[in-house]
Amino acid sequence: MASVAPLLARWPVVLELPVQWGEMDELGHVNNVIYLRWFETARMEYFRRAHLWDRVRTEGIGPILARSTIDYRLALSFPDDVRVAATVLKLGNTSITMGMRLRSRKHDRAIAAEGEAVLVMVEYATGRKVPLTPEMIAAIESLEATAADGGDQKADA
Amino acid sequence: MASVAPLLARWPVVLELPVQWGEMDELGHVNNVIYLRWFETARMEYFRRAHLWDRVRTEGIGPILARSTIDYRLALSFPDDVRVAATVLKLGNTSITMGMRLRSRKHDRAIAAEGEAVLVMVEYATGRKVPLTPEMIAAIESLEATAADGGDQKADA
Amino acid sequence: MASVAPLLARWPVVLELPVQWGEMDELGHVNNVIYLRWFETARMEYFRRAHLWDRVRTEGIGPILARSTIDYRLALSFPDDVRVAATVLKLGNTSITMGMRLRSRKHDRAIAAEGEAVLVMVEYATGRKVPLTPEMIAAIESLEATAADGGDQKADA
Amino acid sequence: MASVAPLLARWPVVLELPVQWGEMDELGHVNNVIYLRWFETARMEYFRRAHLWDRVRTEGIGPILARSTIDYRLALSFPDDVRVAATVLKLGNTSITMGMRLRSRKHDRAIAAEGEAVLVMVEYATGRKVPLTPEMIAAIESLEATAADGGDQKADA
Repeated sequence: MASVAPLLARWPVVLELPVQWGEMDELGHVNNVIYLRWFETARMEYFRRAHLWDRVRTEGIGPILARSTIDYRLALSFPDDVRVAATVLKLGNTSITMGMRLRSRKHDRAIAAEGEAVLVMVEYATGRKVPLTPEMIAAIESLEATAADGGDQKADA
Repeated sequence: MASVAPLLARWPVVLELPVQWGEMDELGHVNNVIYLRWFETARMEYFRRAHLWDRVRTEGIGPILARSTIDYRLALSFPDDVRVAATVLKLGNTSITMGMRLRSRKHDRAIAAEGEAVLVMVEYATGRKVPLTPEMIAAIESLEATAADGGDQKADA
Repeated sequence: MASVAPLLARWPVVLELPVQWGEMDELGHVNNVIYLRWFETARMEYFRRAHLWDRVRTEGIGPILARSTIDYRLALSFPDDVRVAATVLKLGNTSITMGMRLRSRKHDRAIAAEGEAVLVMVEYATGRKVPLTPEMIAAIESLEATAADGGDQKADA
Repeated sequence: MASVAPLLARWPVVLELPVQWGEMDELGHVNNVIYLRWFETARMEYFRRAHLWDRVRTEGIGPILARSTIDYRLALSFPDDVRVAATVLKLGNTSITMGMRLRSRKHDRAIAAEGEAVLVMVEYATGRKVPLTPEMIAAIESLEATAADGGDQKADA
């Protein structure tokens, strides 16, 4: 059971995205599901960099989302730019717990939302759980370690 | 070059969908892209019934959207139910022109939008155009002919 | 501090929605954010029936989403119909905790997802928290009580 | 009846956006409605810069989308970055015809889609058409003229 706890608070993946007008709902705020779309985008970029998505097309094995939690802190609106970051918080035999964080440029980079996601490695065709391989764990640890060198921009994502 | 012109104004596929609150934008109206999501849903149901989607997974051959036009007639809002209909207007060697129509329950079934879509049969991996088969054309004609028997509800969709 | 705990497991609001093809992502499953769009739709219908949305346009006072949790149980795909239900689990001075549940027709009405949402009544312009009024609490209790008479369809939503 | 024809092919508004994984559909391509979301985003940025949105909150007067056309040229996929551009093609008494263009970084900035949109200035509450003011026309012409100085990046958007 690997642990990446020492790497907590590092954000190896940080993306910038513009808020789109059509992402606002009737209240004139970015709709709540858009925050989760952004979280997903950051996770997918993480998967890509950590080679967790490599077996999806070849073997039909990859992560699925089992649980998601989000705390909304700020109402956002167009125009704005958001910075969404992802990190791995915990590794199980077949599961990965990730943390996501969202910041808003218009609010002086204040935190607009924070969330966690539990992902499970499965064989998509059967739903059978598949253990994380040593290569996957090494790729995650390497990516998290890289974040340590990422300087202020990443550290404070 | 088959023609289904005699069948024009028949609507073999008619779906009912509820408007969702989050589909409204800042102006308090259903956002313009949602209308096109509904049109797509009606087309996909048509593809399914006319067996145009059957070769997608086995051979990687199916329709792609080449061109889309929409005229917006009514601003919609939550709560409401819409009825979206699709028909085939024209068949080419490798292309299908479809018509879509949207009605709103809250506006006494008035037309909220009308559109057309040009679809081309391609091999997804290469982008190569693929001719419509006699079986596909027969399936479309059969589906359109069925609509003729569909009674008032479908006829006036 | 009112409590609606005795009414737990009743589902006053139950909506049926068709799965749309474009709601599926690259894996051929309904994307995770769509489940939350459906949950939101059920909550909004609840707000509407319980008069929690009545002051939004007149006074700029209404619920905002503070926290959302979801457990994914089943991967869904087009075509299917889902039944999404909402209930109130707990009432605070200024907050409402709601439960949402999703069932799939294609999976014999098995539960596809369950979630909770914490909503806070605020004045949108200032973000100031606003207490639930006795009228709001009575409307919620009345709606929950009605659910008790809803018969099988609602009871097992 | 003003005309901005001489300014055609200038792109005063050019935005960069990352493709998000969840914007792809079952075929592994960015879903067709996302292109129109991007077009809308470019138009809204144009409205903002040309002060066409200024009267929306104060007077309830602004543009609505009456007609939209799009030609799809390239299938896009995650990861990629798109550049979406908007310009005004024609001005009527109460209407504005805009052109939108989309380029993909992964495809060497080739054109992925082109479209046109007809917008009508209306009073939202009544639906009554409202003439473009001389100030609006001057703001559009000024924005288009600025584009002429925009150099290569904008000129070839």
